[in-house]
Amino acid sequence: MGSVRPEKPVVGYAARDASGVLAPYRYTLRQTGPEDVLMKVLYCGICHTDLHQTRNHLGMSNYPMVPGHEVVGEVVEVGSDVSKFRAGDIVGAGVIVGCCRNCGQCKANIEQYCNKRIWSYNDVYTDGRPTRGGFASAMIVDQKFVARIPAGLAPEQAAPLLCAGLTVYSPLKHFGLTAGGLKGGILGLGGVGHMGVKIAKAMGHHVTVISSSDKKREEAVEHLGADAYLVSSDEGAMASAAAAAEGMDYIIDTVPVAHPLEPYLALLKVDGKLIMMGVISEPLKFVTPTIMLGRKSITGSFIGSMAETEEMLEFCEKQRLSSTIELKKCVGCKKNQAATCHQRNAFIPNNAEHHQ
Amino acid sequence: MGSVRPEKPVVGYAARDASGVLAPYRYTLRQTGPEDVLMKVLYCGICHTDLHQTRNHLGMSNYPMVPGHEVVGEVVEVGSDVSKFRAGDIVGAGVIVGCCRNCGQCKANIEQYCNKRIWSYNDVYTDGRPTRGGFASAMIVDQKFVARIPAGLAPEQAAPLLCAGLTVYSPLKHFGLTAGGLKGGILGLGGVGHMGVKIAKAMGHHVTVISSSDKKREEAVEHLGADAYLVSSDEGAMASAAAAAEGMDYIIDTVPVAHPLEPYLALLKVDGKLIMMGVISEPLKFVTPTIMLGRKSITGSFIGSMAETEEMLEFCEKQRLSSTIELKKCVGCKKNQAATCHQRNAFIPNNAEHHQ
Repeated sequence: MGSVRPEKPVVGYAARDASGVLAPYRYTLRQTGPEDVLMKVLYCGICHTDLHQTRNHLGMSNYPMVPGHEVVGEVVEVGSDVSKFRAGDIVGAGVIVGCCRNCGQCKANIEQYCNKRIWSYNDVYTDGRPTRGGFASAMIVDQKFVARIPAGLAPEQAAPLLCAGLTVYSPLKHFGLTAGGLKGGILGLGGVGHMGVKIAKAMGHHVTVISSSDKKREEAVEHLGADAYLVSSDEGAMASAAAAAEGMDYIIDTVPVAHPLEPYLALLKVDGKLIMMGVISEPLKFVTPTIMLGRKSITGSFIGSMAETEEMLEFCEKQRLSSTIELKKCVGCKKNQAATCHQRNAFIPNNAEHHQ
Repeated sequence: MGSVRPEKPVVGYAARDASGVLAPYRYTLRQTGPEDVLMKVLYCGICHTDLHQTRNHLGMSNYPMVPGHEVVGEVVEVGSDVSKFRAGDIVGAGVIVGCCRNCGQCKANIEQYCNKRIWSYNDVYTDGRPTRGGFASAMIVDQKFVARIPAGLAPEQAAPLLCAGLTVYSPLKHFGLTAGGLKGGILGLGGVGHMGVKIAKAMGHHVTVISSSDKKREEAVEHLGADAYLVSSDEGAMASAAAAAEGMDYIIDTVPVAHPLEPYLALLKVDGKLIMMGVISEPLKFVTPTIMLGRKSITGSFIGSMAETEEMLEFCEKQRLSSTIELKKCVGCKKNQAATCHQRNAFIPNNAEHHQ
């Protein structure tokens, strides 16, 4: 009979229903298994998906739900079979915390496409318990799904890289679009789009931000360093861009609602790729000559692998690339929950009730 | 002042209007220029596009039109700068007879995507004259657009390879889908589909023919050697196929009318490609999660390059791969036009009036 150690109590912010309100929630983490890494959460990004999930926009939310999948923490304890990490290391966890390890995708190290992948929250772990994310004081994650945060990256800057950064890095890598001098388009300038501009610029690409209005021109060109800005509702500008001798090698399409594809397919050069990033349930349309006559592809991609996560973090460190973040203080730490709250400067949704 | 040689008189079969009726038409070929190859036409395939063009289904037909773009002939005369061919060689010409030679596509040897490509008929050549196709006694073609028919291929068998064969060979090559053991789907069993099965089988693929009914099962499995046959209207069979552990690496979609894409995207494995071959003016639809969650691509391709044409012909010779053809006799040769008719066994549309 093995000794029975008490499970670790934590406090997280949980959604109890689809209202979007998060409130303190006490639960326990499993004991640290041989392959596990226990981390004290330092920072956690807020992704638009977190808002969708807490509000049940995708119709598959289970409550109570502790969201958060852009998690940076400090290692507190590691299991007996963990040699890669040790206490004190700064590490990150992302969208996925489990996979089958046996299928073709797992064997090819693209475990994000494993049909048995386990999401870091709102899912069920191998022990039958619900998974809980990074809006919490601590998290326990199998070492396969833990990435080292390079010393040259500020931990708070690293958080959004674990989802938004990876989401754009992975397809550029996979589709062979990392060479300097390529021409890229970033359609939509939200969280993923902003990382897209930064990463594409760091790769040495000529980057055009495409947006529905002129509102984000300054942000795109002045702050993010985009080379060009194209207003998609300006038919003349779009036609001129499409007629340019050199089309775009790719467009990363981050628009999360239904929209026409033809204007963007027309901007691509021969063999260009339109890479869809937005989960859109309404059908999108195209006519076949627009892709056939230029051997263009409409494709998409889903986050990235752990191998790509590590590569992307090293790329960002080397390129001194940071994310644009707004830090929110965890006011709870100043109050009576301080003992269990380790989120120093976590992103906290504006509408969350704090856990004092 | 150079000497003025008379231009060569030829007889072709021309459409005069959108009725679909072809009738004898006399015209002259340009003089053989330094880069030109004059060929006596031996055989010419009939492609469905020829029917569309003669009947003005695409709304851009100019009459009189001499169709035919799967042309096999015997070299009669070559220009002063032609060293690759000589009189007596058996050669082929296909869909394209000209390109700009300066753009990125031309420099990359994918001249089929040159924006200034010249079609082998119903187009205007560099000298300002209309191009005329292979439904004729002779044709003159720039050497860049002439391919040698390997000795091991019967000339009449080679004709459909120059369009239908190339159309399936090119994307399989370009998208890295030539290795043995891949799983492929061929959707639709017309001219291109039938070549798709043969070429994919010759590459060592496991080939599933997907068709809307059971009618073509025998043709697919018994005659063409397909490994499996799937009826797209059989929801149970489609669901079983989609649930199979190993999905398809690609599907070549030859359906020429609007159809749903979801059932076929579901059959693809991660990174699988749906390769559109049908020119369809009505929009096709998809929802983004179906491609994103498996990094699948919807793409398409347009014939192939001259380099791929030569490679494909050599592949077919090596694999002893033939097309399935029906030979139609040119009855005109027996009559008073025999002197100008060199089509021994050309495909002649059933509805063509002959040129006696």
